[in-house]
Amino acid sequence: MDDPLIIGGREFGSRLVMGTGGAANLAVLERALVSSGTELTTVAMRRMDSSGGTGVLELLRRLGIEPLPNTAGCRGAAEAVLTARLAREALGTSWVKLEVIADDRTLLPDPVELLDAAERLVDDGFTVLPYTNDDPVLALRLEQVGCAAVMPLGSPIGTGLGIRNPHNIELIVSRASVPVILDAGIGTASDAALAMELGCSAVLLATAVTRAQDPERMAAAMRAGVEAGRLARLAGRIPRRFWAEASSPDPDV
Amino acid sequence: MDDPLIIGGREFGSRLVMGTGGAANLAVLERALVSSGTELTTVAMRRMDSSGGTGVLELLRRLGIEPLPNTAGCRGAAEAVLTARLAREALGTSWVKLEVIADDRTLLPDPVELLDAAERLVDDGFTVLPYTNDDPVLALRLEQVGCAAVMPLGSPIGTGLGIRNPHNIELIVSRASVPVILDAGIGTASDAALAMELGCSAVLLATAVTRAQDPERMAAAMRAGVEAGRLARLAGRIPRRFWAEASSPDPDV
Amino acid sequence: MDDPLIIGGREFGSRLVMGTGGAANLAVLERALVSSGTELTTVAMRRMDSSGGTGVLELLRRLGIEPLPNTAGCRGAAEAVLTARLAREALGTSWVKLEVIADDRTLLPDPVELLDAAERLVDDGFTVLPYTNDDPVLALRLEQVGCAAVMPLGSPIGTGLGIRNPHNIELIVSRASVPVILDAGIGTASDAALAMELGCSAVLLATAVTRAQDPERMAAAMRAGVEAGRLARLAGRIPRRFWAEASSPDPDV
Amino acid sequence: MDDPLIIGGREFGSRLVMGTGGAANLAVLERALVSSGTELTTVAMRRMDSSGGTGVLELLRRLGIEPLPNTAGCRGAAEAVLTARLAREALGTSWVKLEVIADDRTLLPDPVELLDAAERLVDDGFTVLPYTNDDPVLALRLEQVGCAAVMPLGSPIGTGLGIRNPHNIELIVSRASVPVILDAGIGTASDAALAMELGCSAVLLATAVTRAQDPERMAAAMRAGVEAGRLARLAGRIPRRFWAEASSPDPDV
Repeated sequence: MDDPLIIGGREFGSRLVMGTGGAANLAVLERALVSSGTELTTVAMRRMDSSGGTGVLELLRRLGIEPLPNTAGCRGAAEAVLTARLAREALGTSWVKLEVIADDRTLLPDPVELLDAAERLVDDGFTVLPYTNDDPVLALRLEQVGCAAVMPLGSPIGTGLGIRNPHNIELIVSRASVPVILDAGIGTASDAALAMELGCSAVLLATAVTRAQDPERMAAAMRAGVEAGRLARLAGRIPRRFWAEASSPDPDV
Repeated sequence: MDDPLIIGGREFGSRLVMGTGGAANLAVLERALVSSGTELTTVAMRRMDSSGGTGVLELLRRLGIEPLPNTAGCRGAAEAVLTARLAREALGTSWVKLEVIADDRTLLPDPVELLDAAERLVDDGFTVLPYTNDDPVLALRLEQVGCAAVMPLGSPIGTGLGIRNPHNIELIVSRASVPVILDAGIGTASDAALAMELGCSAVLLATAVTRAQDPERMAAAMRAGVEAGRLARLAGRIPRRFWAEASSPDPDV
Repeated sequence: MDDPLIIGGREFGSRLVMGTGGAANLAVLERALVSSGTELTTVAMRRMDSSGGTGVLELLRRLGIEPLPNTAGCRGAAEAVLTARLAREALGTSWVKLEVIADDRTLLPDPVELLDAAERLVDDGFTVLPYTNDDPVLALRLEQVGCAAVMPLGSPIGTGLGIRNPHNIELIVSRASVPVILDAGIGTASDAALAMELGCSAVLLATAVTRAQDPERMAAAMRAGVEAGRLARLAGRIPRRFWAEASSPDPDV
Repeated sequence: MDDPLIIGGREFGSRLVMGTGGAANLAVLERALVSSGTELTTVAMRRMDSSGGTGVLELLRRLGIEPLPNTAGCRGAAEAVLTARLAREALGTSWVKLEVIADDRTLLPDPVELLDAAERLVDDGFTVLPYTNDDPVLALRLEQVGCAAVMPLGSPIGTGLGIRNPHNIELIVSRASVPVILDAGIGTASDAALAMELGCSAVLLATAVTRAQDPERMAAAMRAGVEAGRLARLAGRIPRRFWAEASSPDPDV
């Protein structure tokens, strides 16, 4: 089936975007990334800046995975915009996963600062993929200011609570003209499948894989879960019924 | 990964058991079965008896899929036992998916008649796979009388409501020594994945595939969903948290 | 509103049936029972037998609450039938809440033994209120053998998990001609309200009140919750919609 | 129990705030308001302006219910601020339920415009009660700019979907220093009870009552539901358990 994910004019064969945080070491991360089949993986710029560490970038290059710099840890629009620009210089890419976090307890996005930063980065020529809450209004606003995708959360980062509000994700999908990428909260493979069944174009996750007991195997689970959900969405599921309904007779009877 | 499903001493590479009811015609069914990767597929004996139709059996033989006769439509233990014996003669297999339905409105199993029929068939040398409600007590009783697996429902047949009571499925799995096969109610791929994450050994479904808008593609979705859920179960998911938790720094920092 | 609960030809003004287990002492229990407004309360016969304790019975008599002997802790039909008969002699009532438990880990009913005991007790002139799982088939069987009500669980005793499978409760209610009393699993007031909204005629609970931090206040909460749910069921709720809908203008505009 | 709701320094004995939209006529509305026991009820200013209709205000005055003007239908901060000022002049109250809607399809709040309007109205001396989405970050921002309460939705207006994301409501409550009032989405009494059990201080609803088949009875149901949930929250519920747990013996044994 030829069913590529297209973001900002680029095609990806995989609909699973990976993050790199939480892995025990680079060897574990490498096996997980390979197992996931991902073609696009986020890299935290602030962490890299402070340490000079480039091991993850080298790993991605070796594996042929496109790096997607993110602004994880940034608190206001100004800091996020600055970080994105540094990333563009350092990595030679104008793509950015935009995170503007409100506080450390929830790691939830700050809606006002996020929208402001998104607008400024779009104006500055970036291909902006914003991490947002699951508010259908904010998702539409982010698209309207020119974001190349919107990335609503399923639940707060690292909680593994899955998709707390499928209704909001459905509302976002039903009005979006850009890809909707479920980002944050995924705990297990059925969560990833559900995201795709709700109409998301892709799933982004990190700790659900990197902190699983067996990251490599969980990466394979997530890969299969995303594919399962995508296929099910395209295949058109049966309706839900209150009462039972027997199968019609076998086709040869 | 070498992770076969073992039922009654036999190994299966696929953990997706298919039903054949509801398909528009044999050609559609064939494509769906191939796409599903199944190695074991149920065939309704009562339908076959009344019509003499053997197209499904020939199809399974050609595809190298093991037929699993069922007693769909049987109402009491006596009728189910008789049907199972006729199936054994006709198909030359002592395996039977045992269904004893209480009524047409819910198509739910009759717990008393089911247990009675199971005991009689086990005594008669059958390898019995009973379709049961999700009652943890009845599941254990069925195992105790010698069933080779237990097949609790997720929700009533044909409803597509998924797994209404994951707690019961977890209770059944936690006490079972035989394979638990989720049977009935699956609507989409994430349902199948969830069944496996709850600890089921396999999933049985029919109309979710045969009556999907695109049966072949939905069969592929279910195949991937079952694999995703199995891998996730084995991989050991992250715990659920109330508060967010940031990824630790990238491994090279 | 004149809306009595009628079981076995008797009317009750309260739709909250209480249990007495789990209370710290009789004074706490008394305050909780009064606060609950209950008119019917279960008493465990096996405990009473073994100890000779009659404090609870005296309390109920003083409060004008009808005692409903139960067969809690009984394992098979024979034991339950014997216990019910002893209760009838001791308390002078032919009403019995029939419990036939399968094991200590789940405290779930044994469906086969339960049905057998129910039939024998009905034949013996008892007014039988059976504690059952949430299987719609078994509920109907219990009614067919002559039970005066059916009492499906929301979730296993003492778990506080609420109603795990509202679909089953709806199925039971939709086919029952006798009162359906939600029994076991209630954790909080919204659970009790939901039970009534699903169409149950009453709710039975014990530890959700007796083991709450403030039993007297929780009893008041449950009383209000049951009333709320009953009123809401009778009032006819608005339908669920996917998209928003504004209020029409104020009535005077 | 003396447990008043305190908003902006004022005490209310009822924790059920009513809206007036959707009622068939003033007589129906009157019976519903009386039945609800409410002491605070919203009035849509824009509707009133356009028609000059004052029947609802007269009704509230007669019933001794405090009117809470809202800015329903306003699209941007400017329009909402203007409407609030007109309401203050017309009704002689500086309290306002602030609504700034993003679009007609979802009737969801516009987070950026809402925060802007809230800040301006607080600066202008208003007691501001903002209708907001369930984003814990925005709820905290609204409190920080001086709102007297925050009013997150359970689900979009008029959907009757209940509380789609209890986790977010819990997050909001756990960090709020002002009352949290669940506003929008309530469909039935158990929804209202759940809102209070999650820690909300009050519930606001309109169409769930005015458009129920029997508005007066549903108002009574909601009143009881709110009380049930409040009492249950204060009483301290039992913990949830995976396995069953028998009641301890009756207290006299």
